[in-house]
Amino acid sequence: MSQWKQIQQLEIRLLEHVDYLYDDNFPMDIRQGLASWIEAQDWDTAVNDESMAAVMFANLLSQLDRVRSQEQNFLQRHNMKIIQQQLQLKYTTNPAIMARVISTCLREERRILSSACTEEQGPLEKSLQN
Amino acid sequence: MSQWKQIQQLEIRLLEHVDYLYDDNFPMDIRQGLASWIEAQDWDTAVNDESMAAVMFANLLSQLDRVRSQEQNFLQRHNMKIIQQQLQLKYTTNPAIMARVISTCLREERRILSSACTEEQGPLEKSLQN
Repeated sequence: MSQWKQIQQLEIRLLEHVDYLYDDNFPMDIRQGLASWIEAQDWDTAVNDESMAAVMFANLLSQLDRVRSQEQNFLQRHNMKIIQQQLQLKYTTNPAIMARVISTCLREERRILSSACTEEQGPLEKSLQN
Repeated sequence: MSQWKQIQQLEIRLLEHVDYLYDDNFPMDIRQGLASWIEAQDWDTAVNDESMAAVMFANLLSQLDRVRSQEQNFLQRHNMKIIQQQLQLKYTTNPAIMARVISTCLREERRILSSACTEEQGPLEKSLQN
């Protein structure tokens, strides 16, 4: 099961923590639309390798093109276009920053999932506040 | 039938014109989620009446709260929250600007619909390019 699928099965209280991870820097539409592809990339290494990050950014845009061209719903297709424009504006000259944002989101998701697995969920609350 | 429903029945070539009307200033998610409510408001008058625009902006936020609280889908609920934050940042001190944006979008939609009704669609293309 993809990490994103596991996230969606969390109880609402924990989903609220995931909610705060996502904004215009990494829209949740992309996290959901490209879930498996995103999880298969090595964002951690790209954070410190500008040329690798540039290739991954170009690949991400291609993936979005593919998803958009298959989307039948007008609103979803429109939103995908807006997101592509925003990402291009934000990261074309700074792809490593995008890699850092995605790497951080995935790590935080894992932290939430791992803490949710412990029987006592008290420590998660404490950990998320730090 | 609501204006927005009519818009969605346009052929793809004309939908592309509608696509360009919407961005962060007036996200299409709101246009769709509050279609009937939006069409029932007098945005044209609010453009020149700051206090009326402020009330309408507050009402819009309340409508979004209502829609968000009823939304079961995590991603949609998240997107609605982000949009609310963006609108508050943009229009709290300038509600008349929001009224102008919405008024313009609705008028342009009517223009596209009205031109689409004419047998000859050549003039629409010309008109939309001006």
